[in-house]
Amino acid sequence: MNERYGGVETGGSWCVCALGAAPGQIEAIEQFPTAEPRETVAGIVDFFARHGRPRALGVAGFGPIELDPAAASWGTLGATPKPGWAGWPLGPALRDALGVPVVVETDVGAAALAERRWGAGRGCDSLCYLTVGTGIGAGLLHGGAPAHGLMHPEVGHIRVPHDRGRDPFGGACPFHGDCWEGLAAGPAIAARWGMAADLLPDDHPAWELEAEYVALGILAIVLIASPQRVIAGGGVIGRAGLLERVRVRLPELLAGYPPGPRIAADSGYVVAPALGDDAGVLGAIALVAPG
Amino acid sequence: MNERYGGVETGGSWCVCALGAAPGQIEAIEQFPTAEPRETVAGIVDFFARHGRPRALGVAGFGPIELDPAAASWGTLGATPKPGWAGWPLGPALRDALGVPVVVETDVGAAALAERRWGAGRGCDSLCYLTVGTGIGAGLLHGGAPAHGLMHPEVGHIRVPHDRGRDPFGGACPFHGDCWEGLAAGPAIAARWGMAADLLPDDHPAWELEAEYVALGILAIVLIASPQRVIAGGGVIGRAGLLERVRVRLPELLAGYPPGPRIAADSGYVVAPALGDDAGVLGAIALVAPG
Repeated sequence: MNERYGGVETGGSWCVCALGAAPGQIEAIEQFPTAEPRETVAGIVDFFARHGRPRALGVAGFGPIELDPAAASWGTLGATPKPGWAGWPLGPALRDALGVPVVVETDVGAAALAERRWGAGRGCDSLCYLTVGTGIGAGLLHGGAPAHGLMHPEVGHIRVPHDRGRDPFGGACPFHGDCWEGLAAGPAIAARWGMAADLLPDDHPAWELEAEYVALGILAIVLIASPQRVIAGGGVIGRAGLLERVRVRLPELLAGYPPGPRIAADSGYVVAPALGDDAGVLGAIALVAPG
Repeated sequence: MNERYGGVETGGSWCVCALGAAPGQIEAIEQFPTAEPRETVAGIVDFFARHGRPRALGVAGFGPIELDPAAASWGTLGATPKPGWAGWPLGPALRDALGVPVVVETDVGAAALAERRWGAGRGCDSLCYLTVGTGIGAGLLHGGAPAHGLMHPEVGHIRVPHDRGRDPFGGACPFHGDCWEGLAAGPAIAARWGMAADLLPDDHPAWELEAEYVALGILAIVLIASPQRVIAGGGVIGRAGLLERVRVRLPELLAGYPPGPRIAADSGYVVAPALGDDAGVLGAIALVAPG
């Protein structure tokens, strides 16, 4: 019997390893700080040496990372500020070290898969898993599978309207200034108000502005990718009341066009994740474990 | 022998009918003004009575229209200002009148399919067909098939940055004012400059502003849907020099992130359509004819 699948989430801060097949069937799960790539891979190999070799390994990684199995640079990180990781072949390194098939996906793409199979996205062939925290990212499913094309989605860098009268803050993205992430991710909130988002009280005007930006970005996702549901999580979205504000603002922005009641505030169109912090590593397992 | 397929494009102004299997194998093609729905369907039925009954019929229609074959309202138009069409069951009416299987798609979704099979999108499993004319619409393919989810894409109504210092025009969309379509479609250009877009000279400042808006919208499509190529057509895009300006502006807006040379101005990432005005009706045939 060897129906155990491996999942690894290589996050910006933590690397999570798990062995199992589904949320109720996890034999082992451990995490350690994400270090330089060789040390991180050694930690992953050690986990599976101690707990058992998986039949196959799914990897949910921070990006940019090449996802196309046919590309020469499959599984290789692109330009990332994380020391040592840019250009590093994570997928091939794990495949060679463990001797098992490896499937690589973005952390958010994997989380979308996990939420669809076991969480808040059940029944949705097309689904968006959005996270707003230190950055903004999204995983999109079409036909139940992560949508890949030129690359993976990088939704954080779309431009949204920025009313400088209402919000004079110039934006925090090192590449684009006031792109969506530059206006709405955690570091932007902290820079705008001079205080970490966690410390801002619930009735601070920061949250109404944040709801506006989050709704504007989700509006673009809805009108371009047309997912059947949007699951919105991450450290910023988790703030009490924010998701409710977004749910009200989104149909206001649609203003009746396109028509249809499916995005109404009480329709369950924008929902919180069900799997919490485990969505990434469970999604890594979902990449390789049969559904 | 009955390997003839039918294609119908129900456009806002013209209804085009064709019988055949591919661009070089069209036995008959005719168009007539799009009238009220019963008269239009009668015209379509008459075309196939005169030229031969197809094995199956593809319909490329203006939207909003329900595309889900499992929905009770499959093939039915949503709220449209076109007299008599709102709530009209176009798909079922054609299926019943002709007695053949019918597949319904948006006009732009069908055009994307046609360009992928026979035109400027060959080799692209994920593809965006964008049209900027009297409105802005897009068809998106994932895995070679039109992406459907909550509905079909309605990209024209995303919001893009609107610098009222540079462009004081308030926008022309009856629902949203200065959404993308409200700033960049043909009626917006005409209202902003007091002159039909066709009449504006090539060196008019209108075109630099237009390139900015078109590039901002394509940027959102690239970062959300990540198509392998964008085919951009329609009456406004056809203006000499505009596509070249957009090709230069798009990588400037990306500013190196996400990284990669694939969107460089000379990369062939944003291209003109190859099938011209026939893309819609050819796409209707592509919906039902084997590839």
